[in-house]
Amino acid sequence: MNRISATLLLLLAFATTAYAAKAKSDTFKRNSDKGTELLFQLDVKVAADVAKEGRAGFFTHWAEDYVEFVDSGDIVSGEDMRKQQPWPQGALLTWTPIHAELAASGDLGYVYGTWIFIAKDKEGKDAVEYGKYTTIWKKQKDGQWKVASSIGNSSPTPKTDK
Amino acid sequence: MNRISATLLLLLAFATTAYAAKAKSDTFKRNSDKGTELLFQLDVKVAADVAKEGRAGFFTHWAEDYVEFVDSGDIVSGEDMRKQQPWPQGALLTWTPIHAELAASGDLGYVYGTWIFIAKDKEGKDAVEYGKYTTIWKKQKDGQWKVASSIGNSSPTPKTDK
Repeated sequence: MNRISATLLLLLAFATTAYAAKAKSDTFKRNSDKGTELLFQLDVKVAADVAKEGRAGFFTHWAEDYVEFVDSGDIVSGEDMRKQQPWPQGALLTWTPIHAELAASGDLGYVYGTWIFIAKDKEGKDAVEYGKYTTIWKKQKDGQWKVASSIGNSSPTPKTDK
Repeated sequence: MNRISATLLLLLAFATTAYAAKAKSDTFKRNSDKGTELLFQLDVKVAADVAKEGRAGFFTHWAEDYVEFVDSGDIVSGEDMRKQQPWPQGALLTWTPIHAELAASGDLGYVYGTWIFIAKDKEGKDAVEYGKYTTIWKKQKDGQWKVASSIGNSSPTPKTDK
């Protein structure tokens, strides 16, 4: 894991908690059926791997035909995504699932939620970006769950209630 | 339907064709199973209604618990989306599905593709924006297909091959 400053970790913890709480309190509640639980677990497992390994933490979770809808970019295959540069030293991406649904057949599902990305800006200050995502999960022929595609976009900086 | 200038229509026709052709030739091919056909038909039906009615063309296609992931905005419920202003006079949104998958149980599916939005900029010139989207479709209890959520982001202006 990259060395991360204590300030950055604190900032991340605060931002994640505040942002996720806001998103949940807004309109959208987690539902608690088994399909949702499974998809939330998958989603959180990816987040844990990304916390440990940065961008490379995604790779093993992508289906062979994975595509990513890069914001302000193109539709990029998993193969081409793997060739991209790692994030800058100390950058962090974290996210929180809000809602998930699994098909009755248990072979296809999706998760949406909110993400936070923290990295140093050009002046070396911690800059926080906010956004949301939708990830499509598909059970593969060998029974493993993999991400078929994911897309995200940006959100405004959440207002605090103070 | 709003009155639309001939220039704008020509521009739209050109942009749509060129952009969709590029996206398809890149990596991603339409597959042709029945689930995909169904989802493409649903997707194209919404596009036809939006061509006729503008933003309001979406409304009947949204599930009761529809949510939209507004780019640079929030996660917005269908109820709140309906309250938003219509697009400016003469604005056009069109899109082309590239790929769709339906769960084996036939109750949940998704479509992704590319979109083009044309509207007058502040100087009154036609401005074209490009992007991509993922739409989640869910069969409702009454058997009707409705959009559960949709998310899009922007893409760079496609390069022509000239």
